[in-house]
Amino acid sequence: MKTNAGRFFEDYTLGQVIDHAVPRTVKMGERALYHMLYPARHALYSSDQFAQTCGLPFSPLDDMIAFHIVFGKTVPDVSLNAVANLGYAGGRWKMPVWPGDTLRARSEVIGLKQNSNGKTGVVYVRTTGLNQHDEEVLEYVRWVMVRKGDVDALAPETVVPEMPKVVAPSALVIPKGLDFTNYDFTLAGEPHRWGDYEIGEQIDHVDGVTVEEAEHMMATRLWQNTAKVHFDTSARPDGSRLIYGGHVISMARALSFNGLANAQMVVGLNGGAHANPCLSGDTIRAWSEVLDKAETRAPGVGALRLRLVATKGGDPFKLRGDDGKYLPDVLLDLDYWALVPL
Amino acid sequence: MKTNAGRFFEDYTLGQVIDHAVPRTVKMGERALYHMLYPARHALYSSDQFAQTCGLPFSPLDDMIAFHIVFGKTVPDVSLNAVANLGYAGGRWKMPVWPGDTLRARSEVIGLKQNSNGKTGVVYVRTTGLNQHDEEVLEYVRWVMVRKGDVDALAPETVVPEMPKVVAPSALVIPKGLDFTNYDFTLAGEPHRWGDYEIGEQIDHVDGVTVEEAEHMMATRLWQNTAKVHFDTSARPDGSRLIYGGHVISMARALSFNGLANAQMVVGLNGGAHANPCLSGDTIRAWSEVLDKAETRAPGVGALRLRLVATKGGDPFKLRGDDGKYLPDVLLDLDYWALVPL
Amino acid sequence: MKTNAGRFFEDYTLGQVIDHAVPRTVKMGERALYHMLYPARHALYSSDQFAQTCGLPFSPLDDMIAFHIVFGKTVPDVSLNAVANLGYAGGRWKMPVWPGDTLRARSEVIGLKQNSNGKTGVVYVRTTGLNQHDEEVLEYVRWVMVRKGDVDALAPETVVPEMPKVVAPSALVIPKGLDFTNYDFTLAGEPHRWGDYEIGEQIDHVDGVTVEEAEHMMATRLWQNTAKVHFDTSARPDGSRLIYGGHVISMARALSFNGLANAQMVVGLNGGAHANPCLSGDTIRAWSEVLDKAETRAPGVGALRLRLVATKGGDPFKLRGDDGKYLPDVLLDLDYWALVPL
Repeated sequence: MKTNAGRFFEDYTLGQVIDHAVPRTVKMGERALYHMLYPARHALYSSDQFAQTCGLPFSPLDDMIAFHIVFGKTVPDVSLNAVANLGYAGGRWKMPVWPGDTLRARSEVIGLKQNSNGKTGVVYVRTTGLNQHDEEVLEYVRWVMVRKGDVDALAPETVVPEMPKVVAPSALVIPKGLDFTNYDFTLAGEPHRWGDYEIGEQIDHVDGVTVEEAEHMMATRLWQNTAKVHFDTSARPDGSRLIYGGHVISMARALSFNGLANAQMVVGLNGGAHANPCLSGDTIRAWSEVLDKAETRAPGVGALRLRLVATKGGDPFKLRGDDGKYLPDVLLDLDYWALVPL
Repeated sequence: MKTNAGRFFEDYTLGQVIDHAVPRTVKMGERALYHMLYPARHALYSSDQFAQTCGLPFSPLDDMIAFHIVFGKTVPDVSLNAVANLGYAGGRWKMPVWPGDTLRARSEVIGLKQNSNGKTGVVYVRTTGLNQHDEEVLEYVRWVMVRKGDVDALAPETVVPEMPKVVAPSALVIPKGLDFTNYDFTLAGEPHRWGDYEIGEQIDHVDGVTVEEAEHMMATRLWQNTAKVHFDTSARPDGSRLIYGGHVISMARALSFNGLANAQMVVGLNGGAHANPCLSGDTIRAWSEVLDKAETRAPGVGALRLRLVATKGGDPFKLRGDDGKYLPDVLLDLDYWALVPL
Repeated sequence: MKTNAGRFFEDYTLGQVIDHAVPRTVKMGERALYHMLYPARHALYSSDQFAQTCGLPFSPLDDMIAFHIVFGKTVPDVSLNAVANLGYAGGRWKMPVWPGDTLRARSEVIGLKQNSNGKTGVVYVRTTGLNQHDEEVLEYVRWVMVRKGDVDALAPETVVPEMPKVVAPSALVIPKGLDFTNYDFTLAGEPHRWGDYEIGEQIDHVDGVTVEEAEHMMATRLWQNTAKVHFDTSARPDGSRLIYGGHVISMARALSFNGLANAQMVVGLNGGAHANPCLSGDTIRAWSEVLDKAETRAPGVGALRLRLVATKGGDPFKLRGDDGKYLPDVLLDLDYWALVPL
């Protein structure tokens, strides 16, 4: 067999390192496409001059582009036979991605746990995105439930890695040179500073976008993510194409501009759950909650820990039902750190 | 409230200047996308070498890209609560937009008129597009009908600005260096010169394009235009998404290649009306009428004043019914100046 | 009439040379779009660094981009009144297309044959794609059935050119500098070398992509292909839009990564048939067969002659029915040469 059938649970071993295939050079075309696919308006990623007043040489590519490309590279090796994407933790953006950079990805298996049904198991990987200089641009832990190919394969020793509930503010990496002391709030679109946000504050981002098959497939392909369920109507019993969870992340992050226009850079991913599937025709909306605040050593730069919730309807600010489970209209519950002018 | 609810009629005052947010750096990616979204084939915008034989350093970005980006920037400040986009006048492209330029927009309120119903009013703004050197790349006047937020707010003094019916040929700005004396009609695609067009001549552009939701949403997002009605099926009672009028402008302009392949550059916008809404599934066609001709001081360069009409059916060359109103199949009636080789 | 009604069969003469209009400068934006439109993952076209380890200065644009742009340029002159695209032969990519290149196309009429019904005829053209240095980047022969405009026009002398069944391996042009001796199979995604493929071997590429109207129209427009049937629901009696055959070629080629990840460069087009129409909603799958193998003079570089079949269903490896005709689910039968590491 010359084609890749994907790894099954028993194919992973603790400590295994996988170098994922097909590095990808990204340039300004990818930035233009990001603006076409999502209503992205954070000024730092839209204007070279705005980025320069913030101490950067020019606009980096959107932080989510780095995430999507690195994630996409892992799919053929990690999630081709996955039943579910269970969670993220400990995500850090370690340096911006610039036009011309080439990204590749590497994953280490840091945990394994066979499920009691004997048919599936949970694989924990720490994935690192590297650029052409072998510098780390991104790292995160992800765990997925994977089918066993051979149900008679012996269960591995159970190892569940300790994972931080939140990335400590002191561990956040601030891009070199970043300086918000000359920040232009008029050009950025909103007057709200770090000090204007309070822990517990909730923001309804108001706008909604109804999503189409062509759009989510183009977005997902752009990141070279090949998971069948996003593209092939024969891959799921009901003939629907499941929208890549990252598409919902980027859509919600872009919608959050309205109220969080100054939450410019995403630097930490504390956790995230794709609560319910998103399908073509759904109208994605978003709301946020300020979970924490922290200072940083960079001039004029503070950090906000934000919960970003994407929904396909229902009232904002409702997350879980009485049973503790996500409400059926909740698509995404993401917990991240963003950098904001003081 | 941290989100932008948009300005209401009573929030505008005569002489008010609004610096619109989120400057945007455009590069070659945006050009590639323009070619993907519209059947654009004017050679000056397609080939660097063709542009060089016309005296330019390389291909500028399509003139409509400048218009769409500048227009998009004004939406959150001008038309979020607009009931209708009523008209354009006095539009001039003042210099080409080059890859690498960063565009922003500024509007001045030049007229206000409350409607007799007391619930809405007309706001007249002169919008200017600026590049990173603070050079003006585009200006136009636009007037929109805007809802009052507080119906009890006092009506402002009525000021209706005088607006030119047409931009005088002497006021058109010819891009520096433009020279059509070595124009290559074979590579441009048609042999028709300025002298071959007669005032009153009508041209059926023959081709049609059936439009899709995914396409118009991607186009509109690309220009960072956030008006809800284009994206959110819950924004209008019938669940349809209204296609951004500029999408119809660009589609019709591109279709006009067939018969007007040598009407290379758009330099003046005399007026325009979005006669009827365009929805996904409509097949856009276009016809043109030569309204006027003028000479310019640039070598080999003449100007044609053209009416560009987009329709979604019906016979070409029919614009209004016996009642003087636009026929229901007419989408757009645009009056512009284009530069054409002598 | 200022619009182009297209040539009819009687408008072609043997030896006629047509310089096609509208040259096109391509840059990195077109590469980004190619990755968005197709699940393309061949590493040589994805990573500048990977291309450098293969002896090239950086990643060229996908070979199919050159084909689509050159083909698109010929449409207004060759196939506007075509009834059917009958075949290809003798195709050779003669040098890579680099970002910044400007492509144009020229065709020579090398054969003419009026059909016995007196209403149509077959036109054979040799099309050449040229860059801004007048270097040939691509050439191929194509023959199409074209309507007569005037059925009373005299039939031309019948000339059917001799066409090679296959491009001889010695005639394939290997890009200057190409060297696969340091080829990185891990980054490329599969371990299979030239020596691992056997003549007669068949590969099911497994994955499928369900196609949408918005996607194929954007792809086809990107190549400035203006054939009505792809865009206008009123152009065909059943209201469907016929998907450009080249869209199926690119989709199938991209899907063939899974099993042919190392078939990096397409350098020869021996023949091809668009067996059945492809419409929106079809799920495209692909399978390949190794037809031949050849050595080349470039270090570490072998050539595989491959049959690439795209289908919209049915079993893989089934091509024709008992009647010798293509099965109804077969969309494409393409015969090409690819370069593969030894």
